[in-house]
Amino acid sequence: MSSTLGTLYKVTTFGESHCKGVGAIVDGCPPGMALTEADIQPQLSRRRPGQSDLSTPRQEADQVTIYSGTEFGRTLGTPIMLLVNNKDQRPQDYGEMSRIPRPSHADFTYQMKYGVRASSGGGRSSARETIGRVAAGAIAEKWLHETYGTEIVAWVSAVGDIEAPAMDVERISRADVDAHLVRCPDAATAARMEARVKEVLAAKDSTGGILTCVCRNVPIGLGEPVFDKLEARLAQAMLSLPATKGFDIGSGFAGTRMRGSEHNDPFTRKGEQLGTRTNYSGGVQGGISNGEPIVFRVAFKPVATIGQAQETVDFDGQPVTLEAKGRHDPCVVPRAVPIVESMAALVLIDLALRQRARLTVSPL
Amino acid sequence: MSSTLGTLYKVTTFGESHCKGVGAIVDGCPPGMALTEADIQPQLSRRRPGQSDLSTPRQEADQVTIYSGTEFGRTLGTPIMLLVNNKDQRPQDYGEMSRIPRPSHADFTYQMKYGVRASSGGGRSSARETIGRVAAGAIAEKWLHETYGTEIVAWVSAVGDIEAPAMDVERISRADVDAHLVRCPDAATAARMEARVKEVLAAKDSTGGILTCVCRNVPIGLGEPVFDKLEARLAQAMLSLPATKGFDIGSGFAGTRMRGSEHNDPFTRKGEQLGTRTNYSGGVQGGISNGEPIVFRVAFKPVATIGQAQETVDFDGQPVTLEAKGRHDPCVVPRAVPIVESMAALVLIDLALRQRARLTVSPL
Amino acid sequence: MSSTLGTLYKVTTFGESHCKGVGAIVDGCPPGMALTEADIQPQLSRRRPGQSDLSTPRQEADQVTIYSGTEFGRTLGTPIMLLVNNKDQRPQDYGEMSRIPRPSHADFTYQMKYGVRASSGGGRSSARETIGRVAAGAIAEKWLHETYGTEIVAWVSAVGDIEAPAMDVERISRADVDAHLVRCPDAATAARMEARVKEVLAAKDSTGGILTCVCRNVPIGLGEPVFDKLEARLAQAMLSLPATKGFDIGSGFAGTRMRGSEHNDPFTRKGEQLGTRTNYSGGVQGGISNGEPIVFRVAFKPVATIGQAQETVDFDGQPVTLEAKGRHDPCVVPRAVPIVESMAALVLIDLALRQRARLTVSPL
Amino acid sequence: MSSTLGTLYKVTTFGESHCKGVGAIVDGCPPGMALTEADIQPQLSRRRPGQSDLSTPRQEADQVTIYSGTEFGRTLGTPIMLLVNNKDQRPQDYGEMSRIPRPSHADFTYQMKYGVRASSGGGRSSARETIGRVAAGAIAEKWLHETYGTEIVAWVSAVGDIEAPAMDVERISRADVDAHLVRCPDAATAARMEARVKEVLAAKDSTGGILTCVCRNVPIGLGEPVFDKLEARLAQAMLSLPATKGFDIGSGFAGTRMRGSEHNDPFTRKGEQLGTRTNYSGGVQGGISNGEPIVFRVAFKPVATIGQAQETVDFDGQPVTLEAKGRHDPCVVPRAVPIVESMAALVLIDLALRQRARLTVSPL
Repeated sequence: MSSTLGTLYKVTTFGESHCKGVGAIVDGCPPGMALTEADIQPQLSRRRPGQSDLSTPRQEADQVTIYSGTEFGRTLGTPIMLLVNNKDQRPQDYGEMSRIPRPSHADFTYQMKYGVRASSGGGRSSARETIGRVAAGAIAEKWLHETYGTEIVAWVSAVGDIEAPAMDVERISRADVDAHLVRCPDAATAARMEARVKEVLAAKDSTGGILTCVCRNVPIGLGEPVFDKLEARLAQAMLSLPATKGFDIGSGFAGTRMRGSEHNDPFTRKGEQLGTRTNYSGGVQGGISNGEPIVFRVAFKPVATIGQAQETVDFDGQPVTLEAKGRHDPCVVPRAVPIVESMAALVLIDLALRQRARLTVSPL
Repeated sequence: MSSTLGTLYKVTTFGESHCKGVGAIVDGCPPGMALTEADIQPQLSRRRPGQSDLSTPRQEADQVTIYSGTEFGRTLGTPIMLLVNNKDQRPQDYGEMSRIPRPSHADFTYQMKYGVRASSGGGRSSARETIGRVAAGAIAEKWLHETYGTEIVAWVSAVGDIEAPAMDVERISRADVDAHLVRCPDAATAARMEARVKEVLAAKDSTGGILTCVCRNVPIGLGEPVFDKLEARLAQAMLSLPATKGFDIGSGFAGTRMRGSEHNDPFTRKGEQLGTRTNYSGGVQGGISNGEPIVFRVAFKPVATIGQAQETVDFDGQPVTLEAKGRHDPCVVPRAVPIVESMAALVLIDLALRQRARLTVSPL
Repeated sequence: MSSTLGTLYKVTTFGESHCKGVGAIVDGCPPGMALTEADIQPQLSRRRPGQSDLSTPRQEADQVTIYSGTEFGRTLGTPIMLLVNNKDQRPQDYGEMSRIPRPSHADFTYQMKYGVRASSGGGRSSARETIGRVAAGAIAEKWLHETYGTEIVAWVSAVGDIEAPAMDVERISRADVDAHLVRCPDAATAARMEARVKEVLAAKDSTGGILTCVCRNVPIGLGEPVFDKLEARLAQAMLSLPATKGFDIGSGFAGTRMRGSEHNDPFTRKGEQLGTRTNYSGGVQGGISNGEPIVFRVAFKPVATIGQAQETVDFDGQPVTLEAKGRHDPCVVPRAVPIVESMAALVLIDLALRQRARLTVSPL
Repeated sequence: MSSTLGTLYKVTTFGESHCKGVGAIVDGCPPGMALTEADIQPQLSRRRPGQSDLSTPRQEADQVTIYSGTEFGRTLGTPIMLLVNNKDQRPQDYGEMSRIPRPSHADFTYQMKYGVRASSGGGRSSARETIGRVAAGAIAEKWLHETYGTEIVAWVSAVGDIEAPAMDVERISRADVDAHLVRCPDAATAARMEARVKEVLAAKDSTGGILTCVCRNVPIGLGEPVFDKLEARLAQAMLSLPATKGFDIGSGFAGTRMRGSEHNDPFTRKGEQLGTRTNYSGGVQGGISNGEPIVFRVAFKPVATIGQAQETVDFDGQPVTLEAKGRHDPCVVPRAVPIVESMAALVLIDLALRQRARLTVSPL
């Protein structure tokens, strides 16, 4: 178990589906920042299931409470404990179901790794685990925004084979993204995506998708070569999310088909600093932010829980037919938007604090 | 600077292009393993430039010396310091060149981050930094192979838009890979790739490419949710390599286009254990290895150093034309093969040791 | 802020005096162990103030709740969140008091470090912060006892200049220690200590003291040279407690007056293993446990909060007379007993898990 | 093995007695500082054995070479590898000796922990391991001195039962300390100590001792509650040194006999800031530096290697008489002076960089 992320802004998450609660401790938040639950709740609400008939109908309030680390609405610089109670706190005996590891779920690997697993099967691989991340990320975002004007916006750029056109990364806003249930800011594409999600749902199936995320107004100099390069930490953060299978930045996989003469980003003067004319680098050179927008993509596989019957075997190797009951979310990418934004914020604030330690030249 | 990787098998690398030497300290290598330089040199030699006219002609012996941590050819369990002397140890005054940040290199970001940079420009972003990783990875590989029979094989699966056909991940060997200079095991594709590299070189340009890597005989249970999931650590490790822009595992980005009913990997009995009939998961479920081959891809951008003239600006924002002198490697992916293998080994050994701490049930 | 301790058994604490609650997350607890609140509460109750008129009368229930990481009374191997609600959850405006940094408290240094501080002054330097440590330590103790039969017993060996005679470290039990309010197992000394505490209380003053702690049945081989030697980790753990000023192990400071010929511990056969005839080493040689009882001492300064008037200056440097109101604990060492035991358990379990990773030789 | 210390200024040491070399990597040294071997050598030379007939006669040049991380005499902000070659690089077969674990050495515990040990027995428990620490500490000291004017001075305050009088911690200098071979700045005491060392040597015995260390001009605000409090990190650092058995700070163990009314340090105006009239706190309150001199003591046991015959048992439990050959250092405390200073510097620089990350308020 490694549930702590970060060097100076350290986030430790806890909780699984049917325990008393989920949340996180944020250790290292800069002191003196205004902070109440109202700063955190919006992203939690964007993450919440049941926002539309596009996602699972299970209703959860997901109200966060700050248990420590603030006083009179200001951060003290001490650990901030964030708690969201679970509505359904009774672990259940799933009976026969618990004898069958669900295909492409974590039931099998958790059982083999720990010799025990939560009755819900998923345990910490459940989407509910991301609540603590989002709460911690909302605090990070606030500090980044107040300190540098940093803006982080993610959106759905593909659902199955339906791809959104290129967006203007300099301008796209969360309002644009939330204008459509499926969280693709292009109206025509969003309509097609929504239709696809409904179709997949009707077929008792699921679909994958891709999120694109941009981080604007990130100061130059973030990223700690060689193992904590900015893109390395982003990749770790994104691939630590449930259901992710890929990450690329800037030109990414497509850039492998280009030639150096096209791909190189020539420098140009931008105000008082240097910038680049193109941004195939995705805002990062040598593992360090260069002041251009950081643009990356995250691939999500199709949800493993489907309504169709599946032929598999139980833990003893006996053939069984598995049929999931109840309704399930056929496409997680719209809800993943605030999660990806939060993970980006967690990476950026930690690298920013580390760089500040280096740059300060005035005596304490 | 973050030059240490790992929790129990900790690797700390050092060195840049024109200092006295490069290398690493491995802290946490299990004691009692047979180890001499002969176990490490082969992967360093595969990494070495100048192996063919496909790569840069600069000849470097890259002979490694073990300075500590072994005695009479056995590891003591104490830190192993690995040193490779640099041939060219004089930092140089690059004169006017040093006033021009090279496009898509790290010159600009290092200067902005540290307020100073190595005369070679690249500093730690140089490919030479990877020597310490490869040496440390060779030791990790040896232990993994002796303990679990683990085999790690990477190959060039794309150069520009030339893609290799799917390989048999259960069987592909390093001998297959090294049979062709370009390290693509498919002869016909290799021939086309080599022609492409020569063409690009002639055009004073460069090309990107993709590596695919398989890890076989990885024990079930490796990966530490939630932040050190196996794929998260692999992604960090790969994106910490120079020139990488993307990572995906199993079905990866392509899997986002699939439906859950196709993508789910049903379980089946394999010998005394469960395995999966398909492997879209890429050997990982819930962030934990499931015993199937771990298969992932790494995207490398086209090399930033090209012979063609480039229009850019200097540090003061004045327009300049930059022309690189000398020959350069037009395609790094063949040489990246042992580097990617080494990074995979470093991730796997660390997670294996962490899992061993959990499973042991006998008294010490 | 660094509120996380440990490499494989990671404890992160949170909370200060007047926030909603205090507690900890334990990440890395071995899976499959029986665990409920009843395993944790006893040590919390021993730590609780108001157990006698020897300590502060403020009554706090300090009931712990496990929020995550267990199911049906067993650990899952996932993070265990432990929460104790604060009774008094209202931060207060201490008015004029907040303008005066209390001598030998943390008011001044917290204000200077963070630019802000909790209204209670102490913030995280409050004794209340140790609740999370004790809860996490109780879990660690349970595992150590079940796995190795480890026993950890601390007692009050000095109050002011009243020193207890040497105890039999092979036999002393918690029952012996708790037989007297002052937690000194020697009846005559305990009586004198209690009289001293009452005398000091009557004088509106406070006194320091010393705890001695023994850890029995610790397996051979714990301790990770060079920076995580067993005694180094114990020293860090103990000096991280409020009001501690010193640590020594085995012969300690007194041993500096001995000659090598007296101090060396000759080996002898003990059952099937080697042991030592004397134990000036305190159970540790070269930073690694040798199977003998680990014996160390921790020095606690006199409590800084006293009823007497003190001449000092306010934050502006203006002379003021400070008079604390209410009753305060004149001697913390009796209550520190379970805290020191808990910190020892946290150090031992982490080093035990790290050693297990090394020793396991069977395939996973 | 845990051979890495620090969060932002990370030191990783390597090497044992008969390998090719010993040294360290410093990762996180601030960039742009002037640095050559000449800045490091003086403390290494103070640490070197054979400086007088008070210590072991084995002559070792201990010349350090900087292998990376600097260019043209300036730090680059990249890892600095520091190497000192061993003169005697041949591991030897100690024959019968290797069958006998030396009393109060690490032979037994290393063998039990690792299942193997260096032929020299000591391995990493050898004093030679401290060379990397001293080299890394010299760099830290330079930065602390240039940035804050920090001065760190340690001296021998006790040899056996001979104690030095109290020193003026505001004024004592390294020149004062080095004025006498035994490194006690009080001439009369030094003479008695030297006589004692010679007497002990003649008796083929050894003696322990105590070092006292002061750190002046340490900025207010260093120390990271709760687990990385300044005194906690100092205690860990000191107890990680070979042969140490105790640490105390400020009033320390003696302070436990005081009353709060005497022990509290009242505030007073000192220039533009607050200071304290007394310094029983030893420069630390609530785990954070308060601007007063940091004063602590470290207890060293008598050297385990003695010339007298010792009755013990071999690894099989058979009684044997052990007689060490050759001359040995009967008292290590004089040589430990630069080592303790270096460890203090390593702790302070790391906490200073961490505090800088917090305080910086200007945009990057």
